[in-house]
Amino acid sequence: MAYFTFKYEALKDFSQEVFEKMGYTKDEAAIITDVLLTSDLYGIESHGMQRMVRYYKSIKNGRLIMGAEKEIVHETSISAVIDGHNGTGQLLAHYAMTLAIEKAKKSGIGIVTVRNSNHFGIAGYYAKMACKEGLMGFTTTNSEAIVVPTFGRLAMIGTNPLAFAFPAEPCDFCFDASTSVVTRGKVEVYNKKGAPLPEGWAVNSEGKVDSDAADILTSIDQKKGGGILPLGGVTEQLGGHKGYGYGMVSEIFSSILSMGLTSNHTNIGSTGGTCHGFAAMDPALFGDPEEIKKHFSTFLQELRDSPKAEGQTRIYTHGEKEMEAVDRILKDGVPINENTVREMKTICDEYGVDMEKYLGKIEL
Amino acid sequence: MAYFTFKYEALKDFSQEVFEKMGYTKDEAAIITDVLLTSDLYGIESHGMQRMVRYYKSIKNGRLIMGAEKEIVHETSISAVIDGHNGTGQLLAHYAMTLAIEKAKKSGIGIVTVRNSNHFGIAGYYAKMACKEGLMGFTTTNSEAIVVPTFGRLAMIGTNPLAFAFPAEPCDFCFDASTSVVTRGKVEVYNKKGAPLPEGWAVNSEGKVDSDAADILTSIDQKKGGGILPLGGVTEQLGGHKGYGYGMVSEIFSSILSMGLTSNHTNIGSTGGTCHGFAAMDPALFGDPEEIKKHFSTFLQELRDSPKAEGQTRIYTHGEKEMEAVDRILKDGVPINENTVREMKTICDEYGVDMEKYLGKIEL
Repeated sequence: MAYFTFKYEALKDFSQEVFEKMGYTKDEAAIITDVLLTSDLYGIESHGMQRMVRYYKSIKNGRLIMGAEKEIVHETSISAVIDGHNGTGQLLAHYAMTLAIEKAKKSGIGIVTVRNSNHFGIAGYYAKMACKEGLMGFTTTNSEAIVVPTFGRLAMIGTNPLAFAFPAEPCDFCFDASTSVVTRGKVEVYNKKGAPLPEGWAVNSEGKVDSDAADILTSIDQKKGGGILPLGGVTEQLGGHKGYGYGMVSEIFSSILSMGLTSNHTNIGSTGGTCHGFAAMDPALFGDPEEIKKHFSTFLQELRDSPKAEGQTRIYTHGEKEMEAVDRILKDGVPINENTVREMKTICDEYGVDMEKYLGKIEL
Repeated sequence: MAYFTFKYEALKDFSQEVFEKMGYTKDEAAIITDVLLTSDLYGIESHGMQRMVRYYKSIKNGRLIMGAEKEIVHETSISAVIDGHNGTGQLLAHYAMTLAIEKAKKSGIGIVTVRNSNHFGIAGYYAKMACKEGLMGFTTTNSEAIVVPTFGRLAMIGTNPLAFAFPAEPCDFCFDASTSVVTRGKVEVYNKKGAPLPEGWAVNSEGKVDSDAADILTSIDQKKGGGILPLGGVTEQLGGHKGYGYGMVSEIFSSILSMGLTSNHTNIGSTGGTCHGFAAMDPALFGDPEEIKKHFSTFLQELRDSPKAEGQTRIYTHGEKEMEAVDRILKDGVPINENTVREMKTICDEYGVDMEKYLGKIEL
């Protein structure tokens, strides 16, 4: 697929105008833009500008209600539950993590769950919000059911990422990953290429490991069975029940503790209902935050310095690749694939945004 | 390997006397015995009576100091850090989780980390202590370095289990698993059988996937490189960096937030230094605990009822297999392999315990 490359600043100004023209306030558009473009800067194309069309479609099909008023339905000094009333994922998530951080600063910890929200972008974005304040951050979300439980053949759980961020030098630790072997986005990439899926990624409608991406995606969408495998794969031998377990932990901190919809009931027809969970925790609960940070940074350095496997030159710690991607992409520009550019163009035509003004003349 | 079967009550009384004769008080011996035998009742032989010899050896080699005084080195209304001064893992863990539960009952949450401890048995035991009080429980521990980070060839991280327990009907959810593909115990089983390891379990001293269990165990013990793989395997394609990430989360909540020894520095020579983490959380922070429990139980039932893969008859939810094992083993007896019986006999001879009195005449 052909790629275009745009300057980060140009995409930022462009995205800002698009979301404002859609009806968001200046501040709201800035938050949504920052979440999307941070993903592109991290090198995670699947959750960046490519998703603009998803939010656009969610507004059109009624799953996302742009002006929805959020409501705090339960609150203590260290916790809260927010009903998003089908509002915008990024805005609800940003609000919830801000609330969790405030509580953590006052009381040491803040845990906030959200129900009736929508897709919120990358989980790591919010976990890192806590890090910027010297706190540990945790974020999770459920999603449409796309992962089969161990020994099952119907998708019942979402890709349900868990993200943990912890302050460290020279860069914060940020582990942000789906609890499945891969995300739907990666299966879609193989489908577009017409390439067979690697063994151990997905099962078909009979619950058998299969490499036919198109068949699997169709089966999932039609709820005929089939789905992506939990981290660890199809059997217990390589730990498939563990990935399934982490997916359940995600449900507990998103849909269960918010009394929201579990993955198997979300994102069906005009029902959205995605649920999230956020936590911020002050390391001062356990000692001197600077000493703890130094202790952790030493361990991270020991990992990076440890002997490499034959043929490998580096051992990464989580969050390191993303920081290097930011430096590279700010310098070289953000790669956007032509399909995404085409979708951006359609949205611009509808809302009367002059795309060329920001991104220059584009030959599609 | 030949197995003997003993009644649970007989083993309990036997173990109680052994630990008392070793020098523990009656209450202490009861806690250690309950942790060990709960593992056997769950069907997790690797962490049950089979470990008695490990604790015996740890006392002998100086890693475990039986009469060590624990010390709370940092404390708030919702957190604490305990220095175990190389005391007994089960006793420190039981004390720490009890403290976490007290804090959770008063303040909604309690998080307690422990440094300078020893092997504590199964993580799930302590997580379930919280469940019995209607709370969510979380437990983790680091351990001797035995897992290689992604792209590495030297073990730097322990098998670092994470356990989450949450109240549910008809049985509590309890997900307790190492963050590696398998535990050392499973590799040892293949070594004893002389069978090749399944592909994707471990790498040799060059960091290459290998099936030679004996070679891998020797390499690990001699710190020559090699180790078990993180959940997800050797590459990023099946998510090896995710298992590595969960292992890091375990370190954060055990060695980092207690300022203790990270896995790569524990259990070397006469240095023990294992670290643990415990949390208890009241679901009332988020609403009506009974409603939340009902909501979660419904989802668990939907999972169990969902369509099975071809050739499979059941989908389990985490903790279910263990509850069924308890019923079966209480009725049929606890299977103990002959090596373990031999080790028990040696310990009895040293401390003057009459094994026959409890377990009957045994022909070895």
